[in-house]
Formats: sequence, structure tokens, C-alpha cells
Amino acid sequence: MARIAPLSGFPEWLPQGRIVEQHVLDVLRRTFELHGFAGIETRAVEPLDQLLRKGETSKEVYVLSRLQELDEAEQKERGDKQLGLHFDLTVPFARYVLENAGRLTFPFKRYQIQRVWRGERPQDGRFREFTQADIDVVGAGELPYHYEVEVPLVMAEAFGALREIGLPPVRILVNNRKVAEGFYRGIGLSDVEGVLRQIDKLDKIGPEQVAALLVDECGASEDQAKACLALAGISGSDASVIADVRMLAESYGAVTELLTTGLAELETLVVAAGRRAPGVVVADLKIARGLDYYTGSVYETVLVGHEQLGSVCSGGRYDTLASDGKNTYPGVGLSIGVSRLVSRLLSGELVTATRSVPTAVLVAVTAEETRPLSDAVAGVLRERGIPCEVAPAAAKFGKQIKYADRRGIPFVWFPGEPGQGADDAGGVPAATGAGLAGSVKDIRSGDQVDADAKTWQPPAEDLHPRVVPGGGSGK
Amino acid sequence: MARIAPLSGFPEWLPQGRIVEQHVLDVLRRTFELHGFAGIETRAVEPLDQLLRKGETSKEVYVLSRLQELDEAEQKERGDKQLGLHFDLTVPFARYVLENAGRLTFPFKRYQIQRVWRGERPQDGRFREFTQADIDVVGAGELPYHYEVEVPLVMAEAFGALREIGLPPVRILVNNRKVAEGFYRGIGLSDVEGVLRQIDKLDKIGPEQVAALLVDECGASEDQAKACLALAGISGSDASVIADVRMLAESYGAVTELLTTGLAELETLVVAAGRRAPGVVVADLKIARGLDYYTGSVYETVLVGHEQLGSVCSGGRYDTLASDGKNTYPGVGLSIGVSRLVSRLLSGELVTATRSVPTAVLVAVTAEETRPLSDAVAGVLRERGIPCEVAPAAAKFGKQIKYADRRGIPFVWFPGEPGQGADDAGGVPAATGAGLAGSVKDIRSGDQVDADAKTWQPPAEDLHPRVVPGGGSGK
Repeated sequence: MARIAPLSGFPEWLPQGRIVEQHVLDVLRRTFELHGFAGIETRAVEPLDQLLRKGETSKEVYVLSRLQELDEAEQKERGDKQLGLHFDLTVPFARYVLENAGRLTFPFKRYQIQRVWRGERPQDGRFREFTQADIDVVGAGELPYHYEVEVPLVMAEAFGALREIGLPPVRILVNNRKVAEGFYRGIGLSDVEGVLRQIDKLDKIGPEQVAALLVDECGASEDQAKACLALAGISGSDASVIADVRMLAESYGAVTELLTTGLAELETLVVAAGRRAPGVVVADLKIARGLDYYTGSVYETVLVGHEQLGSVCSGGRYDTLASDGKNTYPGVGLSIGVSRLVSRLLSGELVTATRSVPTAVLVAVTAEETRPLSDAVAGVLRERGIPCEVAPAAAKFGKQIKYADRRGIPFVWFPGEPGQGADDAGGVPAATGAGLAGSVKDIRSGDQVDADAKTWQPPAEDLHPRVVPGGGSGK
Repeated sequence: MARIAPLSGFPEWLPQGRIVEQHVLDVLRRTFELHGFAGIETRAVEPLDQLLRKGETSKEVYVLSRLQELDEAEQKERGDKQLGLHFDLTVPFARYVLENAGRLTFPFKRYQIQRVWRGERPQDGRFREFTQADIDVVGAGELPYHYEVEVPLVMAEAFGALREIGLPPVRILVNNRKVAEGFYRGIGLSDVEGVLRQIDKLDKIGPEQVAALLVDECGASEDQAKACLALAGISGSDASVIADVRMLAESYGAVTELLTTGLAELETLVVAAGRRAPGVVVADLKIARGLDYYTGSVYETVLVGHEQLGSVCSGGRYDTLASDGKNTYPGVGLSIGVSRLVSRLLSGELVTATRSVPTAVLVAVTAEETRPLSDAVAGVLRERGIPCEVAPAAAKFGKQIKYADRRGIPFVWFPGEPGQGADDAGGVPAATGAGLAGSVKDIRSGDQVDADAKTWQPPAEDLHPRVVPGGGSGK
């Protein structure tokens, strides 16, 4: 077989990297569950026509076909449905809500952590297969605004819990579509989506070019363009940002009802966030984000010091997550790009795991004949929740210690001599527990102490691999 | 939008079912990690030529194509490689081992819990998308026999840990290819694979027809066919089964070196299993299982009382899991069909979750103005690990209790009156913690007690949803 190369865009981690990823996923799950979000998973495939309803993403979809031609009965059974891999977790969730509406309770709070696939050209932080972690709250017919405050604060808590392993701080940037639309209409611009599309380019092409585009493409006057840029320039993390917007709007005589509603919402969010997650949430009036289907709050999240990575957690409020014609389900949600985050944590050496295996103790084997004794010691330790392995061979102890050392296993257990209280069955300890005595060596310090498998306990911090800040700058 | 029907063969669970599945996965992960298996995940796709190396499975593979034609640069970049979804976790693991051999430590013990896809016709317990949970131990160049004892015992422990939620007992049926091959050769049959193929049909077509096929297809005499059936008829869970095989072989003068080696291995396994997992492992000499690549132990697992479901955990020893021409990696592994298992647990109502959400406490909202007080109470409870939700609206308390009841949330918290120690900021308790007092009602019993959010603790069994035996017979 020829040398095997990785597939570009399909990231995989070594065991130590997977421990980091698993830790991130565990923290997310724990945070989401603490807030009452129920975990669900959906199938990986959806009918192609469903996936293509958002036209913009059509080029990214992976389509499935079976290698063998379908036989006739199967074709009939399956109808014409062509299947594709989902490219996000929102489309499948919307379908799941409609399919199960009668069996769910609303408002329905769910989290969903799964892989998605996009046939895009791979780049740094942009993959063809990656894991997303989504939370959404979806209502039947209506959904109170306070959920638009809750979801970014849940994510702030999750990111906060990841700070201790070395995740840089995040800024969750929020805006409200009602504010933007209310303001644009107030100053006399009706092509709201057009304006937002140009504003979205600010970071890339700068204010002069955006102003020119607003005039050329959206029919804005120079003064209107200036007003739009002034609005986009406003940001802040306390109520003063609301006053700034109001003052700007008043100076243009652009205070509409929609603007007022949007500002009240944005203020509620900024005030609550200032109290519950100080410094994390920033109102940033230039955030435009997919405003074709978002109708209220919109969110983006940057890792401080890694802004060029793009948003690691985005979402917003949509009045129609799903609709079956009779019923409409509004929602609000946020999606973390887990692979993008973990990939940066690993490649930047921001974070590392203290070992590559779950094992806390390697139980040495004195001779193959006494392997059952080592198995018994390991069994007793495991009963008390201590992850163990038994050495692969009754090699010299130095070699067995090396086995542990190469994996980062902190302790090696040396069973007592088989004569010492073991019964005849190959050194297996009798029910009295004799034979479970031995000695245990911390191979980092070299300290070795006598110990009994029924009572010895490793320090809590050595029980499981820990995920800790790495030495890298991440740049 | 038209009514949405499920896709046959692509199972999904409601939130309560997902809690059951998640519990099963958590137990498996915990057991595997206690035994020192490192978790990895591989990408969902492999180059088609790799997937098709096992010819037998070619018809099951889902092939991917991008909806849009590839542009020229991309074609060049990707070469000719067509991708398919993996149909098991063994092929990707073998590729992962070769790709990362220089960065892994051997013997390498890994577990892998992921979805796989097969384009088969869906049936009861047979899906097109399903989750497998695999453990394998792979060596570089060599792998001691004792790992063939370890892997089924790890699985026995995992299944044992699932008994308490209502999983029926399992029987792990084991055989050893060396025994079968040694015996067949000993009685003068050289078409070992042919004989095994016929023996594999015993359960379906019975001994008479198998005997006829052995004669017709494998060139066996009537006496040789009888001997094969006699071997296949032997089973048992202690060392007597070894004696039975040896006696049978002696009576045919068929004691070969291979047979003797195989019997010694099988005896080691049966004796260790009898000690460490009494009654679970059964030597069953008719287990034939994919013997084209297995070379030592083979395993199948049935749920007692649900034998018609087929094997829920299968695998074996293979001398060549992977090879790069220079190095060969022998392995032994077992794979649990998680979806098959969970599907039966749910459809048979063998198991249920005590609620449909993680939430232990619903914090009621007295008035929308005092929602921040309820948020603060929930925040304090969460800091102590208690999953909470805040009520969606300041409805009548009866309606808020109904919200909890419909989800199985056991407790509803009623915040103290906002006047009682809350500060001016919308009823948010001051740093002193005043305002965190309230009362909490167990809505199952109706008992209501005064409580402080900083100290009140729900009973441990109510903290998280539990997975418990259901009322169904499972038939």
C-alpha cells in the first residue's frame, strides 16, 4: 500500500487532540444541559430538495448515490428522493420540529452536536467535514424576546468555562435587525437588504468604498451613506450605545417605531449581559449577518487575538424557523464551529492534554503466569473508578515503565509476589483480597509506596487526563 | 410544506429516546476509558478504492459527489479520488493506524463511537445510518493472545453496566478459528472456508441440509460431514467444552498442532471469562463469522430473549488489520451495534427516561418585571450543578407548573417577593444574596418547602434524568 496522505478539509486528531476536543464537547454539553436544553441528533442526510431551499448553499452540498443501481422495487419504495449530507444543523432541526411537532413541547430548547459537510474549498479554519454545536429555542406560533437574551448568555457561559483550559477570551458581537432596518427606513432608504450587504463589506473594503457602493447600488445620497456609516461605527458594551444610536437617529429625524422597538430589545440584551457576563457581549451596529432570514437579534463571536479566524459562534432570531403552512415556528439560536475552534487550539498549541490515554495506572506483570493477579488488581482499581491498563508483556520492569512513560500514564503498580496470599489459580487473589497488596510508583517523581488496590487512590488531578493551557502563542 | 415522513432506515429519536441513547453511549465510553482505551474519531469519508477492497460490501457504499461540477484547479488538487461514506469503523481505523503509525504508541488501544452508512434495504434492526461503538487493540508486528481475552471481557463489563437500566442479559459466543481449521484439516478436509460457509448456515437450514452441502460442495464424506456437525454441536461455558472438543478430535484421530494451539487459547478465554464475567461468555463451536480475515478468536453477542435481532456485538482477531508493505499490524476488536440495541430498547419499551429534558428545576416568573430575579435564582442553582430553566412567561402559576409537568421536570421554584431584599434593578438580588430565598415545590407529591437558592439541593436521584427499566416486554 502506498503512503497514505490526509484528505484536505477532513480534519482528524491524534488521541491527545481528541481528548482536547472531547473536553470541549463535554463542557458544551454540560453547560447546555445546565440551562435545560435537551440533546437531540438528526440523521446526516436530508432530501436534496430540502437542502436546496436556501439557494446560496447549493454548491456546497454533497449528494449521495449508491454504488449499485437501485433495483426497481427499491426505486419505487424510495420515490425520486435524492439525498444529500446536511451542511448545517438548522435545516435538519427545522425538519425535525415539523416532523415531530405533535410529540414535542414548546417552547422547545434543544442542543445538537454533530458533524456537517460542505464541499467548499478547504482553507485555514474552513473544512469540508466539521462539528457544530448548536442551541436553539423554538416556539409554536410565538417566542418571547427574552430567549434572544438567553442564548448568547448560555454561549458566554460555555466559552467562559473553557477559559481555564487556555481558550482566549471571546467577544460576542450583537446587533438587532429592527434597529438597522428602522434606521435605514427612517432616513429614507428602502433597499434594506442592499444596504446591509454593503455594510457587511466594511471590514474588507473600508468606509470610502462602502459609501460609494451605497450611492451607486442602493440609491443613497452622500448624506444617507454618511448616516449609514455613522450607525455602523457605533459599538459598546453598556446602555450608552443605545443612547448613541438614538441621538444619531434623532439628528437625522429618523426615529421610527421599528427603531424604537429594536433599541429597547438591544438595551435589554446589553443590560442583562453587562450583569451576567460582564465584558463579553458587545453591541456592534455593523454586524449584518445573513439578514435575509434573521428578523431580530444577530450574533457573531470572535476569539480575542484570533479575529482573522472569523466567527466561531454565530446565529440570530428568525421568525420562521419552520412552517407547515398552518403553524409557524419562530426561533433563536447560535452555532459554535467546534472544529474551527479545536483546530486553532491544537495548531496554535494553546491547549494540550496531560496524557494521550485515559489510563491513570499501568499494572505491571511480573511473569505471564501471574497475569491473572495483575488483571485482578486492575479490576479492583476500576471498580473504584480508576482507569487502568495491564502491561502488554511480562517484560523487564524498566520496559514496562517505559510503556507508561510514552503514554503519559502517571503511575505503575507492581503486584505483590504471587506467593503472598494469592491462591493457586495462577496467582489470583483469594476472596480475602490477599494479593491485592503491592507497591505503586509515581513515574514522574520516582516515589514508590506500598499500597493496597482496595484503598489506594491517585490524586484527583491524576485520575483523568486534564486539558490545560499549552505553551503556544497561537499566532 | 407537505407533511413530512421519516426516511426509512435513518432512525431518529425523540428527546426522551436520545437520553436513553446518550446514557448507553456514556456507559460505553466510561467502561472503555476505565480499561485504558483512547477515544478517536475518523472522518466519515474514505477514498472509494479503499472502501471497495472488501468486495463483499461494495453494493452497500454511499458514494459522494458535489452538486456543482468541480472546477479545474480543484480537480487537479483532489486527483481522481472518489469518496464514499464509511460502512464500518474498522476500515477507517486501519487507514488511521497506517497514516499515523509514527505518532502512535503500540499496542494501541482505541475506542471509536461513530455513525456508519450502508445502502442496504432497511429492516427491523438493520439501518442505513447507524451508530457503532468499537474497541480494538492493534499491535505493531505482533499482538499477544491475552488481548483476545480482554476485549470480550471489556464488552461483558459494558453490557453488565447496562443491566440496571433494563438491558436484557447478553451471551457472548466465542470460537477460535484455529480450532475449526485444525479440526477440519485433522479429519482430512482442506476447503476450510467452504466448510465454514456451510456451517454458518446451521441456524437457518438445519443439520441435514448442511451435511448434504458439505458432501456436495466441500467434497466431504458422510463421516466427515458428521464430524463437522458434531464439532458445531459443542458449546459450553467452562473448561469441559475444551475436553469435549479434544475427545471428539481424538475419536477421529484429528488432533493437529493447530487444533491444540486453538484449544489452549479457547481454554484460556473460557477460564478467564468464567472468573471475571461468570455466565456471560459461552464457547460455541458453530460460530463461523467472516472467517476470511479472522485468524483466531471470533465473537458474536446475542441479547437473551431477543436472539432474532441478530448479533449486537461482533468481531474477532485478525493478523493483518493493516499493512503498509513493510509493517503489519495485527489486531483484535469488537463492535457494538448501538442503534440496533437502542432501537430495541425503545421500541420494546424495555427502557425509559424519567423525563424528556435535563432540567431539574423550573424557576417560575412572578411578573415579567421580576424575570431578572428568576434568572438570578437559576444562575445560583446552576453554579451548584443543578440544571434549571426559567419559565417562558409570567403566566398563572398553574400554567407554569403545567410547563414543568409536561416535561417531567420534578421541581418548581417560586422566587420570594421582589420586595424581600431585592435591589432596585428589576428585582435582582443584591450581592448579599437576599432575594435568593423562595419556596420550592415537588410537583409530583405537591410538597412545598421554603428554600434558599444558595443551599437547597434536590435529591441526588432527581438531579439528572435517569434511565430506568420500562414497562414493556420487548417482544
